[in-house]
Amino acid sequence: MASFFITGASRGLGQELVRELVTRPASEVSKVIASARGNSPALEELVKNSAGRVAVVQLDVTNKESIKKAVVEAERILGGRGLDILINNAGICQYAAGGAKSMENLQENFTINVFGVHWVTQEFLPLLRKGNMKKVANMTTSLASTTLARDAMALPAPAYKISKAAMNALTVQYALDHEKEGFSFIALCPGWLKTDIGGGDMADLTAAEGAKASLDLIFKPGQELNGQMPKVLVRGWENKSHKYDGTNVPW
Amino acid sequence: MASFFITGASRGLGQELVRELVTRPASEVSKVIASARGNSPALEELVKNSAGRVAVVQLDVTNKESIKKAVVEAERILGGRGLDILINNAGICQYAAGGAKSMENLQENFTINVFGVHWVTQEFLPLLRKGNMKKVANMTTSLASTTLARDAMALPAPAYKISKAAMNALTVQYALDHEKEGFSFIALCPGWLKTDIGGGDMADLTAAEGAKASLDLIFKPGQELNGQMPKVLVRGWENKSHKYDGTNVPW
Repeated sequence: MASFFITGASRGLGQELVRELVTRPASEVSKVIASARGNSPALEELVKNSAGRVAVVQLDVTNKESIKKAVVEAERILGGRGLDILINNAGICQYAAGGAKSMENLQENFTINVFGVHWVTQEFLPLLRKGNMKKVANMTTSLASTTLARDAMALPAPAYKISKAAMNALTVQYALDHEKEGFSFIALCPGWLKTDIGGGDMADLTAAEGAKASLDLIFKPGQELNGQMPKVLVRGWENKSHKYDGTNVPW
Repeated sequence: MASFFITGASRGLGQELVRELVTRPASEVSKVIASARGNSPALEELVKNSAGRVAVVQLDVTNKESIKKAVVEAERILGGRGLDILINNAGICQYAAGGAKSMENLQENFTINVFGVHWVTQEFLPLLRKGNMKKVANMTTSLASTTLARDAMALPAPAYKISKAAMNALTVQYALDHEKEGFSFIALCPGWLKTDIGGGDMADLTAAEGAKASLDLIFKPGQELNGQMPKVLVRGWENKSHKYDGTNVPW
């Protein structure tokens, strides 16, 4: 019986994570707190059909006051229980056609993809400590692997790659700090998804497939994935070039 | 006959790089432009004794206008020739005793260690293209290796590690973008140095040893180090635990 808090839940993978979690039995998923910067009719619809298991909280991950308010709201919704799983899913991907030298958006990418993840994690940590599962999944991308950077050159999104590499390094710092308390901090690669931030129809997986496969990793028992960057495992994709074989991506 | 532009040259490794370069013959080092945020009596002394080979330029790497002015100054000093080697050495290391969750300085670390390096590189690129050596050395640390993060846990400087990991990812993006033009972008680990930002007297190497060994890597011919994170090679340290054996550090 796990409770979730998900950032960036108004669309794409975030929304699919909420949708997928609601299909699970209440014995597995007790509460899903879906957060988004603005109103989301799609989320409101999910709340309506969730028999009280989904709640929506307003959250701007770049605003510390907004984060503190969201923690208070989450505490109220959880009614004294801790939070089990935090999914830092909010993020942006911006392009720079002229390569790294043409990046004029590096700060904006970092504010959402790195500082936002840090601030949200920092503020939710006490509530996560009270939870049973103590998992934090930071949604990332294998494109952020510095080791494999050459393979990702076709995608002209250097600020996205660099900021996600930084978020991965942040994830590992938290992972090492809190492993003795039983935490797992995972930099999770959900695959190339048919979402706005992803590749639209060109991409490999539907958002629903990415959400299901991501939750398989998040629900994996134990701390084996703490401080790792696993790819999702999707049947039928293990042997293709974009392998979704569940293995860890090198930093 | 190489020309250099060095950031953060008022003290520590930056100042030693200038000092070491002036000892080299003019046939090897034609001009050293030492930049710093404020006045530096030590640098002025180096200028006096350099027979016109060292020039000082004011530069705040966090201020784009200041960077643009420094480029204009460098162009004037180089008298129409290009810049051969840029050393992005300016950086900060801040501590967070309570681990990652206690970082209140992540933005400041990133502004100097990541955005500053990007902005300086971006603005100096045209002048470097006119140069013969086309080298950019971004001073980093093996503590920023995400792969080896566990080994570095004893140093409570998560914002330093994370921001340098991001700078490394930035270095690789530039490296891949410009390798066909003949550039080498190196994330260079100068070793644990007896400087203010380093370990004081506890550290392994003097700033002068670190500067000499760093220049060995920078002067290495060819593009073998492009997009890599080499450690310096220091005789006598190859077989010790903090090995300075000239090999690449994993990301």
